[in-house]
Amino acid sequence: MAYDAPVTDYRFLLYNVLGADRLCELEPYTEATPDLINAILEEGGRFMRDIMEPTNVPGDREGCQFNPEDASVTTPSGFQEAYRQFSEGGWTSLDAPVEYGGQGLPHILKFIVDEMVCATNLSLGMYPGLTHGAISTLHEHGSRELKDTYLEKLISGEWTGTMCLTEPQCGTDLGLIRTKAQPDADGSYRISGTKIWITGGEHDLTDNIMHLVLAKLPDAPAGTKGISLFVVPKVIPETGERNSIFCGGLEHKMGIKGSATCVMNMDEARGWLVGEPHDGMRQMFTMMNEARLMVGMQGLGLAEAAYQVSLGFAKERLQSRSLAGPKNPDGPADPVIVHPDVRRMLMRQKVLNEGMRAMALYAGHQLDLSKAHPDADTRQTADDIVQIMTPVVKAFLTDEGYANANTGLQVLGGSGFTQDWPIEQYVRDGRIARIYEGTNGIQAMDLVGRKLSLHKGRLVQSLFADMTGYLKANPDCAHRDALKGALATLEEAVNWLNDNARQDPEQAGAAATPFLRLTGLTVIAWMWTRMADAAGQALANGEGNQAFHEAKQVSARFFFDKLLPEKDALLADIVDGKESLMALDDDQWAL
Amino acid sequence: MAYDAPVTDYRFLLYNVLGADRLCELEPYTEATPDLINAILEEGGRFMRDIMEPTNVPGDREGCQFNPEDASVTTPSGFQEAYRQFSEGGWTSLDAPVEYGGQGLPHILKFIVDEMVCATNLSLGMYPGLTHGAISTLHEHGSRELKDTYLEKLISGEWTGTMCLTEPQCGTDLGLIRTKAQPDADGSYRISGTKIWITGGEHDLTDNIMHLVLAKLPDAPAGTKGISLFVVPKVIPETGERNSIFCGGLEHKMGIKGSATCVMNMDEARGWLVGEPHDGMRQMFTMMNEARLMVGMQGLGLAEAAYQVSLGFAKERLQSRSLAGPKNPDGPADPVIVHPDVRRMLMRQKVLNEGMRAMALYAGHQLDLSKAHPDADTRQTADDIVQIMTPVVKAFLTDEGYANANTGLQVLGGSGFTQDWPIEQYVRDGRIARIYEGTNGIQAMDLVGRKLSLHKGRLVQSLFADMTGYLKANPDCAHRDALKGALATLEEAVNWLNDNARQDPEQAGAAATPFLRLTGLTVIAWMWTRMADAAGQALANGEGNQAFHEAKQVSARFFFDKLLPEKDALLADIVDGKESLMALDDDQWAL
Repeated sequence: MAYDAPVTDYRFLLYNVLGADRLCELEPYTEATPDLINAILEEGGRFMRDIMEPTNVPGDREGCQFNPEDASVTTPSGFQEAYRQFSEGGWTSLDAPVEYGGQGLPHILKFIVDEMVCATNLSLGMYPGLTHGAISTLHEHGSRELKDTYLEKLISGEWTGTMCLTEPQCGTDLGLIRTKAQPDADGSYRISGTKIWITGGEHDLTDNIMHLVLAKLPDAPAGTKGISLFVVPKVIPETGERNSIFCGGLEHKMGIKGSATCVMNMDEARGWLVGEPHDGMRQMFTMMNEARLMVGMQGLGLAEAAYQVSLGFAKERLQSRSLAGPKNPDGPADPVIVHPDVRRMLMRQKVLNEGMRAMALYAGHQLDLSKAHPDADTRQTADDIVQIMTPVVKAFLTDEGYANANTGLQVLGGSGFTQDWPIEQYVRDGRIARIYEGTNGIQAMDLVGRKLSLHKGRLVQSLFADMTGYLKANPDCAHRDALKGALATLEEAVNWLNDNARQDPEQAGAAATPFLRLTGLTVIAWMWTRMADAAGQALANGEGNQAFHEAKQVSARFFFDKLLPEKDALLADIVDGKESLMALDDDQWAL
Repeated sequence: MAYDAPVTDYRFLLYNVLGADRLCELEPYTEATPDLINAILEEGGRFMRDIMEPTNVPGDREGCQFNPEDASVTTPSGFQEAYRQFSEGGWTSLDAPVEYGGQGLPHILKFIVDEMVCATNLSLGMYPGLTHGAISTLHEHGSRELKDTYLEKLISGEWTGTMCLTEPQCGTDLGLIRTKAQPDADGSYRISGTKIWITGGEHDLTDNIMHLVLAKLPDAPAGTKGISLFVVPKVIPETGERNSIFCGGLEHKMGIKGSATCVMNMDEARGWLVGEPHDGMRQMFTMMNEARLMVGMQGLGLAEAAYQVSLGFAKERLQSRSLAGPKNPDGPADPVIVHPDVRRMLMRQKVLNEGMRAMALYAGHQLDLSKAHPDADTRQTADDIVQIMTPVVKAFLTDEGYANANTGLQVLGGSGFTQDWPIEQYVRDGRIARIYEGTNGIQAMDLVGRKLSLHKGRLVQSLFADMTGYLKANPDCAHRDALKGALATLEEAVNWLNDNARQDPEQAGAAATPFLRLTGLTVIAWMWTRMADAAGQALANGEGNQAFHEAKQVSARFFFDKLLPEKDALLADIVDGKESLMALDDDQWAL
């Protein structure tokens, strides 16, 4: 059962819902016509299915091997060849800057391709995935010289990149890092320290790896204000010399076993400063923000892959009779998809996946508008929305994507727990996405503690304005009252936070997780209204695939009637406040 | 960080909440005095920590090995010795019948010990766990001769037992089984067929294994009414002859890797009929009902183990400062337990674990009353409650236990995803508990489709009566209004089902999963009222551990204010009915 990229859904979202066919009217995206986009969707789906997916399960069984004699890492069989085809096919350069050999296409296409990559081979997709963040960071913050040295080879996929942030004593709290950078006479630096959990820190896919490393200069102020970012190549491009940055071992993980998660030791490794000293945290956020959106697509990709497997299983597996009388009278039993409780699982997967996809592509579209729209206000508003949606996309899609993969496993029953089917791997692989690039709790804190108060709350108001603008422009929109109810609930939560969390930040911390979830549910509710409206329009016009558009309307009903009611419980939790969370003394947790 | 059995909580539930100290007033349980119970709790906690837990993680890494040359199975290193001590310590015979060497103690103690076993080594615990179900089934339905041949050795742990139900073409729908039983001249039978997913089907812990096998006699009616149950020993006790039942291989699974999950092939294996022909389904439910309650304890045990690990981590791991000012000013950062969002995760684990434990022990107490109370009406009511609670305990504790283990993993961040900590194993091990002994969807169908309508709805009325009786007897009980609200919500759901599901069974199927969850939440709400009341009583009397009782009151607040509000979303889902679930045509699921 091979992956089948949801191309119809992508097209529906791009053209019927988001109006992304008009991106080609913007200056940098003139090549991104619907014809080109359609070709990329088709070819991307085919490539990921034929080239990436076949190495996914074997890669999990084989895993990466660390070879202590030369500190090298061997990736699973087939990864080298698949990666070679991936970069030769241009999948590493899609939205990368044209001046360094990239294709300069809209970012929304990168979102879509990320979903396909992660649905078919998350472990292998991690190597170019991290590289992409390194490219953006270097492009935005690096000197001309650094960019000229590295960008072309990173964009072509000839080299890969990493983000070296975490150390044993610090993950979330990067102010605690100890890696040191000592200035050298020639303007470069000597970097010493140990980094952990470095994705693609060492591997055999390319000849060189460009590490982006957070470290402290000798005169650095304490905390996060004293962190600088350095380029530390595995092999120094100018001399071909092997730099003193070596893998010290691999983590043994629950999943993504084909992705090399490395301990990296630097012993006076040569490094080059990116941008200004002590500016590393800000630069790092270029990587982090992009990575967070990509990680959201990981959650969605695995959920879509799991949905496809469980749907196929449910149509084939014969077990018991329909409660409404036999549907397969000539067979020994009916396919389990006839049973309401099995359909509940499949509908939950389908409706949340499609809703999350719409939300993510909405954010992706805003990202493109924020970079390419001629009007400054439009760019600003779009950027506000991207900022507020980034933690929501990351956390909601990974939490719910993981839940959906688990639901898919449940549809298979005992078979799902065995390695005869790929779903148990999707569940194991997907578990990390709720953690890396900032745990989902940290995403919620970013949303509530930072994004809500930035620019006097303008960010969330930009989002509200976009939603209320839609309601105003579409007085007969589908599920209007329920959507307005969700908006009112979210506004009430924002108001409560404004009234309570400013003077007591622990109230923000207490509300963070349910608030992020409420935000995600509300935006997805709006997406379902827009999808139902677009589907209704297509049906009225007799356009496109009628069965597809009817299914959209059923799915919207399912979302509004069965999933959205959770919003009230989330609001109740938020306005209940911190008291019962903070009441226990240290010695009362276990007695 | 070693497991610490929650003995204080067990004692609080047994004595302060449930009044199980009075079980020793009942005839069969006169030995179960608080002194004896306390000794079992203490010794059980120590034994599981010292003997069972040390082989848990190594057992996962090593797994079971199938040896094709002699169709034998090797369990992980250390399992043999730990199992020997487990059976010699009397942990296999706790509540087994005295006439065959059992200790005849109340079943509620078995529930508690099951939690401890599953918290420390689920894989190893599966072998005696399945045996226990085989003992009960044989004791209830077997002939004197079969009982005399097998029970003593099963109860002592010298032999183990299995349940051989599933076949490749049938799991849930046992009417489809193909295994055949041919009568032999001597009154025994020749059994031929293939069974899959047989826990402990082959292993090296004991010399003999007694399989209980579902098969069809030549004259069997079609479907589940034509299934008979047979004893099929690995070695025939009378002759010492190796029977023709052989392991054909092991499943490769996501978790419980130390538990041998076998394909079992029978080629005219000798078998002996249990009870009457064609009565196998009814007999099997003796096993299944018991196994379902045990599987619930598996979910809880893993959740408790995960809670302990994540709590310990949260107190040690230093990262960022408290939002209310430094709590550990001399250290580089504060322990992460100061952060509200981390506390939210820990509170959720703690409060649900304690609530689920209370619900399970409530069911265990009712089980003892149903068997041992002198008054027939009391026995009947208790049995009603056990019947209604069995699917709820199984499904709620495994769904939420799995979720809690996952929450524990999240508290550890990236560390939780590595095999340096045991939590990722708890998550993998616990995943199967939502599936075996009937998927949780099947549990929900059993509750809604069967238990609600049995005896004209008497079962759920017995449960309601117990709850409303408590409200009447305790007019000042804690969280009274919220509990009454939950009861009213559950009653509304029952009424809706009575009005809608009788004429349309698909409405029952559509409502099943949210209805089971609503039932669980409501019973746990009642348990939190009872725990808060008992804690308040103890505080008023100045009895026991004050910090423990204060923590109970905080936890009750957390449950009522932050978790119970989900009930309204569940009701909305239920009364929304089946329409959006059943609307899609076969070809509309993926387009």
